[in-house]
Amino acid sequence: MDSASDQKTATLDPPLHAIGFKIDDLSPQKVTGRLLVSSKACQPFKVLHGGVSALIAEALASMGAHMASGWKRVAGLQLSINHLRRAEMGDLVFAEATPIHVGGTIQVWEVKMWKIDPSNSETRLNISSSRVTLISNLPIPNDAKDAAQNLKKYAKL
Amino acid sequence: MDSASDQKTATLDPPLHAIGFKIDDLSPQKVTGRLLVSSKACQPFKVLHGGVSALIAEALASMGAHMASGWKRVAGLQLSINHLRRAEMGDLVFAEATPIHVGGTIQVWEVKMWKIDPSNSETRLNISSSRVTLISNLPIPNDAKDAAQNLKKYAKL
Amino acid sequence: MDSASDQKTATLDPPLHAIGFKIDDLSPQKVTGRLLVSSKACQPFKVLHGGVSALIAEALASMGAHMASGWKRVAGLQLSINHLRRAEMGDLVFAEATPIHVGGTIQVWEVKMWKIDPSNSETRLNISSSRVTLISNLPIPNDAKDAAQNLKKYAKL
Amino acid sequence: MDSASDQKTATLDPPLHAIGFKIDDLSPQKVTGRLLVSSKACQPFKVLHGGVSALIAEALASMGAHMASGWKRVAGLQLSINHLRRAEMGDLVFAEATPIHVGGTIQVWEVKMWKIDPSNSETRLNISSSRVTLISNLPIPNDAKDAAQNLKKYAKL
Repeated sequence: MDSASDQKTATLDPPLHAIGFKIDDLSPQKVTGRLLVSSKACQPFKVLHGGVSALIAEALASMGAHMASGWKRVAGLQLSINHLRRAEMGDLVFAEATPIHVGGTIQVWEVKMWKIDPSNSETRLNISSSRVTLISNLPIPNDAKDAAQNLKKYAKL
Repeated sequence: MDSASDQKTATLDPPLHAIGFKIDDLSPQKVTGRLLVSSKACQPFKVLHGGVSALIAEALASMGAHMASGWKRVAGLQLSINHLRRAEMGDLVFAEATPIHVGGTIQVWEVKMWKIDPSNSETRLNISSSRVTLISNLPIPNDAKDAAQNLKKYAKL
Repeated sequence: MDSASDQKTATLDPPLHAIGFKIDDLSPQKVTGRLLVSSKACQPFKVLHGGVSALIAEALASMGAHMASGWKRVAGLQLSINHLRRAEMGDLVFAEATPIHVGGTIQVWEVKMWKIDPSNSETRLNISSSRVTLISNLPIPNDAKDAAQNLKKYAKL
Repeated sequence: MDSASDQKTATLDPPLHAIGFKIDDLSPQKVTGRLLVSSKACQPFKVLHGGVSALIAEALASMGAHMASGWKRVAGLQLSINHLRRAEMGDLVFAEATPIHVGGTIQVWEVKMWKIDPSNSETRLNISSSRVTLISNLPIPNDAKDAAQNLKKYAKL
């Protein structure tokens, strides 16, 4: 499963793959994945880089919005992220993107990231909370037709 | 100079290096750098990944705030980014972080990204505009003492 | 009940009272209220003013954070709001603030606003979604001691 | 001049008038005004209410975007505000909105608020910095035709 997730992420979002993220679920209602925090995703204080959390949020929301728009081209307009708690090297971090609003032109997605409390496996410790605003009625350039094709291959619709 | 920038970026911020960014200026008043947009920094529509812009903003603001705090540990609390215009494969993109507010506990940095108008080399076309809010009075863990040492090596103070 | 809500809001937050908002629940876990949209809360297109939604978000989150901090002084650092759907003159709008993160220094609150779907009273139509970041370890100036006293009078603790 | 500003603000934006704000300049390149901080604009700690700053930002940006769009209907999508420094009762606060990006569909405006340093009248002390994202290609409802007419009456075009 990890190897399949790796392949999927490398195809769908190279920067996300570069920092070690693995995409799991892919649907217009939910996009999820996970990151085993390694040096590829850390800032100099050896904790998860806040910019990596932002990259994950923008990436998952964009894929979700692309599916939810009926395969139109989408573009991120605005991202707001609150960093709530740090994750350290070796932590396993989960991410989940869900739509807050799916309009004809504008979509807003929420992306939550968390780790599991080591002292209680039932408890999620929130790491960040994001809002991504996207515009979704853009024409698709000819040289990017395969963006949708790759996503369709992996998505559950 | 590019080779020195590469080395500096690889040492100071591995995720920033992974997407192809090169750090130039490093001071408490300004942090700058540039990115030649390659597939490592693109989303599936072959334009600069909005999450990569956010990663750059968080990274430059964090280094600047670290210097401006007098080498205390800093942590990003919030990042807001507006994506204004797209950059494509092969575009050379510039980034500049400057402080809006440097308080004893809280700092706010602005990060602008732009490309040069191909039809008029005097005109900057803005790609994104960010605000990064950081907290700066955190104690430094023993295993991260070298974060400041590396930054001091490269910074102009 | 409306008259009591009016009195409570006028005492606790004059700008919130000026635009016609009525505070209902007040606890460290939840702050709620409602607004019958009148011309006092509208912009020139006769819909709920986006800035009024932001005012409501900042006000409810600040009261909640003040209670959750153990009555320290709090100050808003950052507010991000997404406007999702419009409300018109005569609409009854509900607002609810809940904590996302309550740390010793930083709190983050979420504020949701919605109206009831006229065609289905079970359905909430979201109007806006906000994130308010606050700092909560500030000393209280002598001339503002009654801020906490008024809130304590009305809060359910 | 104050009386004319009062009238203008009451006509163009009732909530802005309710908290004591006075609009000065009105053009597609810049919207400005000022606020003498009174109890109408304060939170319980007797400082300028952060939500009032957000209301001012959304209001000025909306008027500016309306003018810059060629009098189409505009709607705020997202507002992000950083509160940088407090203003107290009796302080005179200035606000200025300028466009960062004016596209055919999306506009982004920056709104700065500041007071004058009492120890040096040449120094501006920043109170807040906002970004307002607006959509500007909306049709105008029949019952809101006078929104543009009022703005045209006062604007310098």
